[in-house]
Amino acid sequence: MRIVLALAALPLIAVAQTGPITLRDMGSFHVGGREVELSGRPVKEITFTPGGAPAKIDPNGTYLVEAMYVQYFLPANRRGQVPLLLWHGGGLTGVTYETKPDGGEGWMTWFLRHGWDVYNSDAVERGRAGWAMTPEIFKGEPIFLTKANPWERFRIGPGPGSYASKTTNPGVQFPTEAYDNFVKQAVPRWTTTDEATIAAYTALVDKVCPCVLLFHSQAGQFGYKVAQARPDKVKAMVAVEPAGDGDPAQVARLAGIPGLVLYGDFIERDSRWPSIRRNGIAFAEKVNAAGGKMEVVDLPKAGLRGNSHMMMMDRSSGEIAALIQAWLEKQGLYR
Amino acid sequence: MRIVLALAALPLIAVAQTGPITLRDMGSFHVGGREVELSGRPVKEITFTPGGAPAKIDPNGTYLVEAMYVQYFLPANRRGQVPLLLWHGGGLTGVTYETKPDGGEGWMTWFLRHGWDVYNSDAVERGRAGWAMTPEIFKGEPIFLTKANPWERFRIGPGPGSYASKTTNPGVQFPTEAYDNFVKQAVPRWTTTDEATIAAYTALVDKVCPCVLLFHSQAGQFGYKVAQARPDKVKAMVAVEPAGDGDPAQVARLAGIPGLVLYGDFIERDSRWPSIRRNGIAFAEKVNAAGGKMEVVDLPKAGLRGNSHMMMMDRSSGEIAALIQAWLEKQGLYR
Repeated sequence: MRIVLALAALPLIAVAQTGPITLRDMGSFHVGGREVELSGRPVKEITFTPGGAPAKIDPNGTYLVEAMYVQYFLPANRRGQVPLLLWHGGGLTGVTYETKPDGGEGWMTWFLRHGWDVYNSDAVERGRAGWAMTPEIFKGEPIFLTKANPWERFRIGPGPGSYASKTTNPGVQFPTEAYDNFVKQAVPRWTTTDEATIAAYTALVDKVCPCVLLFHSQAGQFGYKVAQARPDKVKAMVAVEPAGDGDPAQVARLAGIPGLVLYGDFIERDSRWPSIRRNGIAFAEKVNAAGGKMEVVDLPKAGLRGNSHMMMMDRSSGEIAALIQAWLEKQGLYR
Repeated sequence: MRIVLALAALPLIAVAQTGPITLRDMGSFHVGGREVELSGRPVKEITFTPGGAPAKIDPNGTYLVEAMYVQYFLPANRRGQVPLLLWHGGGLTGVTYETKPDGGEGWMTWFLRHGWDVYNSDAVERGRAGWAMTPEIFKGEPIFLTKANPWERFRIGPGPGSYASKTTNPGVQFPTEAYDNFVKQAVPRWTTTDEATIAAYTALVDKVCPCVLLFHSQAGQFGYKVAQARPDKVKAMVAVEPAGDGDPAQVARLAGIPGLVLYGDFIERDSRWPSIRRNGIAFAEKVNAAGGKMEVVDLPKAGLRGNSHMMMMDRSSGEIAALIQAWLEKQGLYR
């Protein structure tokens, strides 16, 4: 049931683009969120700025929480039939799709240059979405990652211990000389906010779709579940190494939506990625068994070697974007 | 010593602009930061995604903290002699300068359309800059604001209690129908991170200046102090209701930098703003006594009435931008 897309069969377009970008509009907004009441807490007097006038801050009252942030860029020469929504992975923000850690062009401007309306976002709790009082509103505690963690978990290096010696997987495409710039992009995360995140993403889809969803890693479950909630509004799904999947009881709701699932290199060398990939393929197969149109691409088998979990930051990110672009064209979503 | 700029004397240019924006480049980066070691903590096993593969997360090791996030847009038709850096106020992010809560055009695109290279940022601890373990690395605790707080403290309404009845200051220009959208922009803040923030802003100035600094509210102290640290790199300062000031012992370091200080309406009705304004004017006067070139504008006296503390979001934000633009032209920073 697994389909390995043959790169040779795709009409690959030129990847490198430079020169001016002309926008018909750009902007940002917040969407979603709910109100929460807190009470019974003491009023504090806070001097925000040294030498400033103290302010009485009453923590009791209504909080507006769990909204998300979205920034959009609309090209003058629009060629995508619907907007392209970019959803980042865990512990990260929309910066994932912006300028790469090594200064190269990220997927956001790549697709913008190719004529797609792009909506890049920070999910609930991340970046410009803000976060709520914890543990009162966000249950549990935030998780912070050391510098070593993503190197060892995102297949830049071969697992635990590899960061200390700066050992990489052989031929890895991640620009390790710019690794610190990537680490600076990381933000704290919770494991308790999935439902709030799905609610905000659903509000986003209601606001700006029909659209294509491109989602990475943790957003695997968000992309699939929101598509299951709004199957008429999602015209295609691009799952980039999804770390979670949709509701297996509702796979039939995805049957009408073409899907592309991408996996990078070094998976068989990792302790966790073989099972994550196996689950992701099993989910795609269930969707197809219900009449769906999911295609799975293992990038090494398609001739693209060395990709890490952060393939949108890898040196070969443009080639992967071109593969996604060709697939979207094949779905009739480009003019 | 206080100079009230006469609006009539300024060559005000057309404010409303629509149509395409052509960029010669756009992108983002993180800058600054330092490493911190933590040790002696237990390793945790965390399942990030329901049904996912558990990961061992070792919280011991090196953290990269206190970097900041910067996004830039460079117009094809560049007219500003140097880049314009936009620095937000407390509990907020660079979203302050993006699309206004009522959907109108914010200052970032206003100045971009007028030919300025714009660098909009999230300071340390805010938005896409991320934040560090607290209280281990960020001392103290984060402060969260209720919905009522900014309404009552930013002079949208007449102080404590005004939010419950939705009472506004008479003729306020803030788009109160879009107030919830503004509240969604707020993020938690600390009162202990000023030095880290100044360090990161200084690294930003070292990277992209000479430049103009435009700073709001809490960033008053950041703008002035960073200009004091790098007086040769700052060609002009626009202080929008600064809530804090520079080092009074180093005012002479600002003597060579023209400065514009703006205050909105309703200050005399507020419990805190009269003293904040008084301190800000006293600081500007000290700079001028040392040979400086600071101009203070009370917007109501210049014919612009009803402005709140969030004047870049007010209905009349374009008129204030035009006033700033005219002042920058007068400084010879525009071609």
